[in-house]
Amino acid sequence: MSGDKRLKLGIASYSLRKFSLTEAIAMTKRLGVEYIALKDFHLKLDATPAQIKGAAKQIADAGLKLVGCGVVYMPNDPAFIRQVFEYAKTAGMGVIIASPDPEALPFCNQLVKEYNIKIAIHNHGPGDKKYPLATDAYRLVKDMDQRMGLCPDIGHIKRLGADPVKEIEAVADRIHDLHIKDVSASAPEGYNIEIGRGVIDIPQVLRTLLRLNYQGHVALEYEKDPDDPLAGMAESIGYLKGVLAVI
Amino acid sequence: MSGDKRLKLGIASYSLRKFSLTEAIAMTKRLGVEYIALKDFHLKLDATPAQIKGAAKQIADAGLKLVGCGVVYMPNDPAFIRQVFEYAKTAGMGVIIASPDPEALPFCNQLVKEYNIKIAIHNHGPGDKKYPLATDAYRLVKDMDQRMGLCPDIGHIKRLGADPVKEIEAVADRIHDLHIKDVSASAPEGYNIEIGRGVIDIPQVLRTLLRLNYQGHVALEYEKDPDDPLAGMAESIGYLKGVLAVI
Repeated sequence: MSGDKRLKLGIASYSLRKFSLTEAIAMTKRLGVEYIALKDFHLKLDATPAQIKGAAKQIADAGLKLVGCGVVYMPNDPAFIRQVFEYAKTAGMGVIIASPDPEALPFCNQLVKEYNIKIAIHNHGPGDKKYPLATDAYRLVKDMDQRMGLCPDIGHIKRLGADPVKEIEAVADRIHDLHIKDVSASAPEGYNIEIGRGVIDIPQVLRTLLRLNYQGHVALEYEKDPDDPLAGMAESIGYLKGVLAVI
Repeated sequence: MSGDKRLKLGIASYSLRKFSLTEAIAMTKRLGVEYIALKDFHLKLDATPAQIKGAAKQIADAGLKLVGCGVVYMPNDPAFIRQVFEYAKTAGMGVIIASPDPEALPFCNQLVKEYNIKIAIHNHGPGDKKYPLATDAYRLVKDMDQRMGLCPDIGHIKRLGADPVKEIEAVADRIHDLHIKDVSASAPEGYNIEIGRGVIDIPQVLRTLLRLNYQGHVALEYEKDPDDPLAGMAESIGYLKGVLAVI
């Protein structure tokens, strides 16, 4: 019954932001998932190429697959944006999960082609003036290169009172990463909790991803209990695997 | 999507045997389950009535329901067996999960009537000379009082190469508690691992319990990582809840 392989379950390392890269790798291994996307806590965006390659090797040596980085906040600063693409290229990452200034999108569109590395714009829900919903970002990238896409965050979608399934369906051809989580309420004051304890219809989200034949990363981003997140992350991963065992 | 209430999920506190009662209560609360059965590590069988009542109050005050105790190994010693029933009565427990000597069963049958407290015989799989399978115990109690029953341990059943679903069905009218877990192999050398990572068809076990309208306790007994069991227990509970969300 172990290991449904239809979806690539992994971890957004923001969940492990209080821990070192070595600890984050060990915790991800213990959670029994194969994929990880690194937040800059675990590998600084201004790290040297040697440092970047060392981190990537450490992750690969542990048997994990390094999917990408993020969320990276991107001002409209071509030098910085190029630096992030160089970082991703050096690390062997396929996707940059980002919150770019809308003015930076044309330059991002140029670099996804130059580097063959995807951009996945992350929506942050209430309070995000640029991309509250995945569909808000979609409108801006849908006519750009196919590698310009989205990382729908279903928690922030739900906190805005929107339907994660409808959002996923609406942007399906541009999903390059996905943040899976649960929230306590379909309202701005809803907060992140263990998957299965909240208000998101997780089975329906997973059924939708399977129906769409989504091949990208499904990353648990767990914001609760930053000093001691392992139990809540494990419960969340267990829930996802349990649902996947019967759908 | 939270909280399927059709099954009473809880913890066999043997899983938390390296921790104090206070710690075990906190960990059970964190796991988001409501029920607990106490191993003697957390409340000695020779505790005074005041100690027993204090422990029961501490559990109730935490919002948990104290189901029973065990596994209690019972030699054919009427004084000891009576002491265990007194302990359970004082604590307000409804069931004693036990491995009694077969010779002690007639006296147990007498006391279940006297105290109106159930006995749930626990099968220990390979190496258990008395009750390798639940059906081995069932044969001995099926003509006794209805309160003489079983606590099928699906891990030990699987380790004997038997089918947990068939065992559950065969003893359904006498299940007074149940130990749920997963094991690495359907063989004596199979060991306990996170639910969902092993070889037991957990969805089918849960479907069977629902179909039988089982109203008793479904206790996670997690033997792995005794010094640091919380993550594996959380993953296991999450898996059960995930399966229950879609069956």
